[in-house]
Amino acid sequence: MIQGQIRVAVNGYGVIGKRVAAAVLLQSDMELVGIADVATDYRVKAAAIAGARIFAATEKDMQSMHDAGIRVRGTIEDLLDLADVIVDCTPKSVAAKNLERYRSCGVKAVFQGGETHALTGHSFVAQANYESAMDRDATRVVSCNTTSIVRVLGSIQDAGLLVSARGVLIRRATDPWEADHSGIMNTIVPEARIPSHQGPDAQSVRPELDLVTMAAKASHTQTHNHYWTLKLVGGTSRDDLLAVLRAAPRIAFIRMSDGVVALNSTVELMHDLGRPRGDMWEVAVWEDVLSVQGDEGFLTYQVDNQAIVIPETIDAIRSLSGTVRDANESIAQTDRTLGIRRDFLCVQD
Amino acid sequence: MIQGQIRVAVNGYGVIGKRVAAAVLLQSDMELVGIADVATDYRVKAAAIAGARIFAATEKDMQSMHDAGIRVRGTIEDLLDLADVIVDCTPKSVAAKNLERYRSCGVKAVFQGGETHALTGHSFVAQANYESAMDRDATRVVSCNTTSIVRVLGSIQDAGLLVSARGVLIRRATDPWEADHSGIMNTIVPEARIPSHQGPDAQSVRPELDLVTMAAKASHTQTHNHYWTLKLVGGTSRDDLLAVLRAAPRIAFIRMSDGVVALNSTVELMHDLGRPRGDMWEVAVWEDVLSVQGDEGFLTYQVDNQAIVIPETIDAIRSLSGTVRDANESIAQTDRTLGIRRDFLCVQD
Amino acid sequence: MIQGQIRVAVNGYGVIGKRVAAAVLLQSDMELVGIADVATDYRVKAAAIAGARIFAATEKDMQSMHDAGIRVRGTIEDLLDLADVIVDCTPKSVAAKNLERYRSCGVKAVFQGGETHALTGHSFVAQANYESAMDRDATRVVSCNTTSIVRVLGSIQDAGLLVSARGVLIRRATDPWEADHSGIMNTIVPEARIPSHQGPDAQSVRPELDLVTMAAKASHTQTHNHYWTLKLVGGTSRDDLLAVLRAAPRIAFIRMSDGVVALNSTVELMHDLGRPRGDMWEVAVWEDVLSVQGDEGFLTYQVDNQAIVIPETIDAIRSLSGTVRDANESIAQTDRTLGIRRDFLCVQD
Amino acid sequence: MIQGQIRVAVNGYGVIGKRVAAAVLLQSDMELVGIADVATDYRVKAAAIAGARIFAATEKDMQSMHDAGIRVRGTIEDLLDLADVIVDCTPKSVAAKNLERYRSCGVKAVFQGGETHALTGHSFVAQANYESAMDRDATRVVSCNTTSIVRVLGSIQDAGLLVSARGVLIRRATDPWEADHSGIMNTIVPEARIPSHQGPDAQSVRPELDLVTMAAKASHTQTHNHYWTLKLVGGTSRDDLLAVLRAAPRIAFIRMSDGVVALNSTVELMHDLGRPRGDMWEVAVWEDVLSVQGDEGFLTYQVDNQAIVIPETIDAIRSLSGTVRDANESIAQTDRTLGIRRDFLCVQD
Repeated sequence: MIQGQIRVAVNGYGVIGKRVAAAVLLQSDMELVGIADVATDYRVKAAAIAGARIFAATEKDMQSMHDAGIRVRGTIEDLLDLADVIVDCTPKSVAAKNLERYRSCGVKAVFQGGETHALTGHSFVAQANYESAMDRDATRVVSCNTTSIVRVLGSIQDAGLLVSARGVLIRRATDPWEADHSGIMNTIVPEARIPSHQGPDAQSVRPELDLVTMAAKASHTQTHNHYWTLKLVGGTSRDDLLAVLRAAPRIAFIRMSDGVVALNSTVELMHDLGRPRGDMWEVAVWEDVLSVQGDEGFLTYQVDNQAIVIPETIDAIRSLSGTVRDANESIAQTDRTLGIRRDFLCVQD
Repeated sequence: MIQGQIRVAVNGYGVIGKRVAAAVLLQSDMELVGIADVATDYRVKAAAIAGARIFAATEKDMQSMHDAGIRVRGTIEDLLDLADVIVDCTPKSVAAKNLERYRSCGVKAVFQGGETHALTGHSFVAQANYESAMDRDATRVVSCNTTSIVRVLGSIQDAGLLVSARGVLIRRATDPWEADHSGIMNTIVPEARIPSHQGPDAQSVRPELDLVTMAAKASHTQTHNHYWTLKLVGGTSRDDLLAVLRAAPRIAFIRMSDGVVALNSTVELMHDLGRPRGDMWEVAVWEDVLSVQGDEGFLTYQVDNQAIVIPETIDAIRSLSGTVRDANESIAQTDRTLGIRRDFLCVQD
Repeated sequence: MIQGQIRVAVNGYGVIGKRVAAAVLLQSDMELVGIADVATDYRVKAAAIAGARIFAATEKDMQSMHDAGIRVRGTIEDLLDLADVIVDCTPKSVAAKNLERYRSCGVKAVFQGGETHALTGHSFVAQANYESAMDRDATRVVSCNTTSIVRVLGSIQDAGLLVSARGVLIRRATDPWEADHSGIMNTIVPEARIPSHQGPDAQSVRPELDLVTMAAKASHTQTHNHYWTLKLVGGTSRDDLLAVLRAAPRIAFIRMSDGVVALNSTVELMHDLGRPRGDMWEVAVWEDVLSVQGDEGFLTYQVDNQAIVIPETIDAIRSLSGTVRDANESIAQTDRTLGIRRDFLCVQD
Repeated sequence: MIQGQIRVAVNGYGVIGKRVAAAVLLQSDMELVGIADVATDYRVKAAAIAGARIFAATEKDMQSMHDAGIRVRGTIEDLLDLADVIVDCTPKSVAAKNLERYRSCGVKAVFQGGETHALTGHSFVAQANYESAMDRDATRVVSCNTTSIVRVLGSIQDAGLLVSARGVLIRRATDPWEADHSGIMNTIVPEARIPSHQGPDAQSVRPELDLVTMAAKASHTQTHNHYWTLKLVGGTSRDDLLAVLRAAPRIAFIRMSDGVVALNSTVELMHDLGRPRGDMWEVAVWEDVLSVQGDEGFLTYQVDNQAIVIPETIDAIRSLSGTVRDANESIAQTDRTLGIRRDFLCVQD
């Protein structure tokens, strides 16, 4: 078990890495010792301006970053010397090699959902299995879609109300900042395979879930949108379902009646709430759309793919470190520091 | 029963009207006596250049069309004098009033899916209820989404394989030609109500279908995309399901393995096949995505909202006229003239 | 001249209103006394949660806001009693009527660029004519496009380098939060008239500018993009032009070489810099794209239509109030509180 | 000089190749002997269904095409044996190697605008330099943007009215059928360099043109949109400019007053006119937007990047073949077979 502040490094300063770094800075029990990357562009420069300590993935990258005017403190080897835990947000191809290096340096590692379950042998969602990651040397925070599924369906399952779930996941095509021809235009691209991988991935955390997913990419850049048909235990009412979701961590209600009528409404709402980058860490469930008919429930929710795994990553750092032994305690601490809500528009939240 | 060629008029020369007019021209048993509209823009001018006889909705419209350089043959009153059947493709608000006028002139009328079932008391899909529209004075061809549902689910139901169906309908936001701020941008807009109206609308044609739909608009302009979870009669295999769909009218297979990987692939394919306007009259079912697991079937298909109701409209004209007393005969005739296919990429179709 | 803090009210809490309110809160010489609106949706609710004092446009609105659970402090009449200056961010049709009311209450008023120059007889850009608005009862902060033109071309004109300017303005189609079918899809919509109105509008502030603009809307929601061909005084070098822009207020350089390669790059950069809502108050000029050939200069820059007028509005409040008599002093104060930069990626800014 | 029908082969059956093949079929003086490709997807399958003779780029491709169920007639070597002229529509990297092969087989070759001027030493636009390509063994039809510039500015230059031209070219981001992540989303991507390459490219055909272009990609898939500021010879009136453009080949007028208000309006209009694939071979100039002020002209036009080079390619085949020695004769023949117009909405065209 780590003593004092957990010293956290971030490897890969992209969409997830930059958000993890910002969230670590908010944790009183963590210290951000540095970030590593290979890029010399505005992202790393802005991080340096903001005061982050920058490390290079290799000696060669160190030179090119230096040439670009970035103050580099060393290579990732130097960064690992300073860290208890590293959050690996690098692209898929390099992460497996990284794990060996982290292990050899005795640094615990949190990977992201782009990696396979097999890499670390453990897939993490705080409310589901915080304890089982404790004192491990590595875990994988599951992807944005999977995290949302585990939160929502897992909560209904835990309440004993769920028989099975069939979902359609309409994903954003690429991230808002991508300018380099990674997008789709004026179309929908369905996944070529049913079931899509998100169902089995959720079962890596909650094997008992009976679920099948179909997925597609649509022509927008902000957030995913899931549609679920739930088979419920007989007698479950709409109020029962709402009560479960209201009590579950990191799920918040939105309402058509408040003018939150589309995916971009919620992004604006996050800005209105003063959220950094307009981030929404919660799964946003449309309360007034959710419906129960007979023994079936129907609901739609929204997932901010850039932000939803950030609180899970903070919890994963604590779990690996073993400094907080209770899931609820870590979740509460993370949620308080980030400002996570149960309902975005109730004053008495 | 009408003798000789059916004299057809089209009221409203928009997305549907222009396609109905073109399809009528291909029918040896029909004559296009004229089209009526209120607009003076490029659509009507292009129709006039192409040789269509143009009529104005009112005397006032006649003047403004004349001023715009369009040769106008009279008002809609004059057009009704020439017609046995009129296809009403006008905007929602005016159609109800039109029906009275059509009736008083003794002209039979086909309405479109924007109208309610109540307007005519009959909702039409050729394969489902051609006979029951025969000799009526009016019917309503149901909307694009509903037509696709009746074709696909109706066929599975008729084969005795369907228990229930739960669908998610991802719709195009606006039509490709719309330039006047009717679009959505970089978002998805879910319908505020579950079930969405398409399920009940399909039941206006096939009351015995057990189905629930959720719907949303996505940020593209071309075609709808449906995702279905089917509860099947025990023992139904994937091959069973494919065989039913292959035999059903106006459903054609597409395949990811042919590079048809997205909604816009199919639009290009229709152009490659020489289709006018790239129109796809068939429901395009992804054959190699369709999956059966246990007693559940999962499938996704694509609906060309601008084109799918055109063959139904042609059949509806015949049914009201009473000239062809057998649904299959009318369907076959329509399909042959339009070039409707069962599989877009088999040479021996 | 107003004594003590300037008491500021905001009428209309939309895209501009919410940003003005937030900027007022950062000014040590201003107090936000309340915001007025007619809406009952998430925007006003979020404002209330954040602690703003809400007023209703009318008694009737007060009731509906109350019914929606919003704590309303009174009507706009009550708000005007509390204010020295009101910033009117209401839709176009109502502003003219508002001015009469503001005058009768003795409250000075800042209008936005949607209004005509004639409404107040004065059009405001801080660097151009702060002094001439001083002690007036009302002014109009010009629109986002016009503000950027006055900043950039006005600076080059002031340096004695500009002969004439011909511009193409590619505008965003609608704002990012708009979900209600106000967008365009997969097209460009050119303005039907050359010159477009932005050129004459810039001349309402800088009559001596020789400029012609063409404009269009493109299929994106974030920021405008201007392309200019400048006729320069003979002998002007690229370095001369860059030096003028570097010295001018509220213009900041961006660079393709930093990976800022598109409009959305800059939005991400603003988030990386910690800007609220990702707002960019500066005109962002691509330094490494700007080119001079012979006596012509060519440049492209980006305008955040949601944010660029916010610093001007703050200055306009001070100018009308008469509390700060020097433009540069007000500009410096506004820029310091907002964190406005000359170059987004230089550490020694 | 070739005797009898010109035997034409098409290498590369993509956006341009498929349109060239279709246009060749319409020419009474040409025979389409076959098309070559490497793909096994729907495009080639649809071509085979339509009756085209398919050849494979290599022996290996022949096998994979055969395995995909496509009837392959041989390799490109076999195709070259049958051809007098080949139109190379392959991707950039392979064309240079192809030229050697074509030469060694004694087959003349037309390349497309993705290749450099240096490859063939001749860049082709029919109205500008048909004669100089005659009897050569190869030429390059310039790109869509360049073709439009040569047509429009070249015509004004030829009329002695043009001093200089400064243009902003807003391009489509990717083609409508592209589903595989080649698009941009919710942004504009400016070219990193001024002048953009289109200006110098137009000078490869018309060296005397004084022009500078800036360019960008916008978030749509259909057609480019150019904005020009022209310095005109003193005394040139708006009517003069319109008269020149009206008389010039392959330029057609459109009008805002006809409801042609955006890029997608024109696409719909082409469909309304019965054009295959909605193709627009003409440069569409907005007549009622064009403006002359003092000695400057301002205009905007639209370029269908998928279609505009097709008539030029047909003419280039004839020019290389030497069968038609007069540019105007070839242009007239091509235009008549395709149905090219001077004004889309005049009956007496």
